[in-house]
Amino acid sequence: MGTTIFSQMSQLAAEQQAINLSQGFPDFAADSQLLAALARHSSAGLNQYAPMPGVPLLLQQIAALTARCYGRVLDESREITVTSGATEALFVAIQMLVQPGDEVLLFDPAYDSYSPAIQLAGGVPVHLRLEAPDYRVDWQQVATRLTPRTKLIIVNSPHNPTGMVFSHADWLALQHLVAQHGLYCLSDEVYEHMVYDAAPRLSANCYAELAARSVIVSSFGKTFHVTGWKLGYAVAPAGLMTEFRKIHQYVTFSSFTPAQYAIAEMLREQPQQVTELAGFYQHKRDQFRQALSGSRFSLLPCQGTYFQLLDYSAIAPELDDLSFCRYLTIEHKVAAIPLSVFYQHGSNARIIRLCFAKQDTTLAQAAEVLCRL
Amino acid sequence: MGTTIFSQMSQLAAEQQAINLSQGFPDFAADSQLLAALARHSSAGLNQYAPMPGVPLLLQQIAALTARCYGRVLDESREITVTSGATEALFVAIQMLVQPGDEVLLFDPAYDSYSPAIQLAGGVPVHLRLEAPDYRVDWQQVATRLTPRTKLIIVNSPHNPTGMVFSHADWLALQHLVAQHGLYCLSDEVYEHMVYDAAPRLSANCYAELAARSVIVSSFGKTFHVTGWKLGYAVAPAGLMTEFRKIHQYVTFSSFTPAQYAIAEMLREQPQQVTELAGFYQHKRDQFRQALSGSRFSLLPCQGTYFQLLDYSAIAPELDDLSFCRYLTIEHKVAAIPLSVFYQHGSNARIIRLCFAKQDTTLAQAAEVLCRL
Ligand SMILES: CSCCC(=O)C(=O)O
Ligand SMILES: CSCCC(=O)C(=O)O
Repeated sequence: MGTTIFSQMSQLAAEQQAINLSQGFPDFAADSQLLAALARHSSAGLNQYAPMPGVPLLLQQIAALTARCYGRVLDESREITVTSGATEALFVAIQMLVQPGDEVLLFDPAYDSYSPAIQLAGGVPVHLRLEAPDYRVDWQQVATRLTPRTKLIIVNSPHNPTGMVFSHADWLALQHLVAQHGLYCLSDEVYEHMVYDAAPRLSANCYAELAARSVIVSSFGKTFHVTGWKLGYAVAPAGLMTEFRKIHQYVTFSSFTPAQYAIAEMLREQPQQVTELAGFYQHKRDQFRQALSGSRFSLLPCQGTYFQLLDYSAIAPELDDLSFCRYLTIEHKVAAIPLSVFYQHGSNARIIRLCFAKQDTTLAQAAEVLCRL
Repeated sequence: MGTTIFSQMSQLAAEQQAINLSQGFPDFAADSQLLAALARHSSAGLNQYAPMPGVPLLLQQIAALTARCYGRVLDESREITVTSGATEALFVAIQMLVQPGDEVLLFDPAYDSYSPAIQLAGGVPVHLRLEAPDYRVDWQQVATRLTPRTKLIIVNSPHNPTGMVFSHADWLALQHLVAQHGLYCLSDEVYEHMVYDAAPRLSANCYAELAARSVIVSSFGKTFHVTGWKLGYAVAPAGLMTEFRKIHQYVTFSSFTPAQYAIAEMLREQPQQVTELAGFYQHKRDQFRQALSGSRFSLLPCQGTYFQLLDYSAIAPELDDLSFCRYLTIEHKVAAIPLSVFYQHGSNARIIRLCFAKQDTTLAQAAEVLCRL
């Protein structure tokens, strides 16, 4: 395990005073009502330990959100736990589900925390490769990689870093696989509200048989533009959630109390913000793609998330993607993430990831630079 | 692993509308400057991911604090990491230091997260028993429990739940043991600033040979009366800290950003608050002990922390301590923590723990009830 690429590139961007499109976070202000709510709840004295599973008001709002978005009715006191970011939820879920020797299926390119968490639990990550430009899962191929030791499959839709989004057929195939082979599923859905082009918003929450064997993870940091608040949550059937909490209580115990009240208030009073998020980011995606259309980069599809992949092989085919990212940051003052770091054994593709969760002016500036290359 | 006793008793206290002296947290407001700073930094837009090791301003202030308190000069960029509470720091340190089969020495009564974290790492907790009323460590006895598999020793001074504080001789004996046998030390010092009766403030930070093999953990939640902020930190030599961060980055990655700036501001502008903490809590301890002096409880010593142990054997010798705590909460509306839960194999002692981090009126009310028993 090294230092995450996100830390490395954000640090390089800061040193170089580059436009930072590497680590995924917005460069614009969060909603002022949210910030006012944080201040108000903190001033009102809500600064001591939250209950270990989360503040009840927030658990209620998460249940209401899940019902609104996916029609799933959760038992808010037993099937939801608030965590210190989605990262903690992923870590705890993996510690809970993976015993030494268990195999875990995951798809490359993969978010960087999955594999180390599996290894720390003594598990064996089994990486399946998704192929550009669409990065779709071949479910028949997945089935061939099952062994008697396969315990868990990790999925991530909308998918970071590729922007791929599972179709209804994908979810059905996943459900079939999980049910038929008695697997568990860890469904990382932190970009769940960023799905574009009027595609249906689907989730493991929509598939009862799948949900019965899943831990589903989401993030308020992404949804409310406050990645530094480190507030996420996990949803799972009560039996699994009991086990989840036994670990969670010794990993962080609880999360920042006033933020839990503030997010609960937003979900109650501004529920439309969640549904408007897709339109908000689709606009940014479209503007950014439009601005890059005259460049020598080729744009890969982006169905969801706030990331856009760019193929730079027409510009610098001789540079591997890490070198290209360093070059881009140092020489052209735009920081990006190399795709190869999301692969177990690297990748020779000439592809980088850019985050478009930025002000329109930031995106325009970055596009102008990128068009000159 | 069950649900922590702290959650259980706080919930029972809430249900019973009892005075909650169980879980350790203040019932008074945090400093208004701290709360204003939180609101200001959040409004100013500091809501995105903090750097993974912590906000540099806070790391600087932690280094300055460590120099002021203990004369130890830290490399702030390589020897300190901010964590989501001391709980996360303890968890990560244990995951880092303990390999499957490693034995870990710890002292009962022990804080409840140590043992589950050791077991999750595949380690073997070796519990040594401290005896009432002083709960002092017999270092010669400790040496007899070493085996070739002993990897780590966990110490906690000031000690939760007993209030015992290590003397200079204790620290020297610990240092000798660690150095001579090539152990590592995890020093849980979350109550470091709550040491009473003009005792010298000592820490693993004061002993260079010990510090060279130690992860030292502390908590701003305790020091600044904001346990719900879940902000702590770990200090370790650069080599160990590099390994610590490799795990931390996949457990939570970073902690609530605006709070890091707010605490940094307090440490810079109100450094005396840290040194005044001992006097503040000593006054509460003295008042509470005084108010209980006419009761039928017998008071155990309290050299530090914000916990007071009470022996109730003159009142209800037939009740075990969990039953007594339930009785006290339900019938007399005062919630406490039974001491036996801090022991691997329980304890027959008739002792309970009360938290005196409470308003004077709360303590007076509770004492009045307790004096009637
Ligand atoms: C925790 S830092 C990584 C942020 C992120 O989700 C990403 O950039 O992919
Ligand atoms: C994390 S809840 C426990 C709080 C505490 O430190 C205690 O009561 O001992």
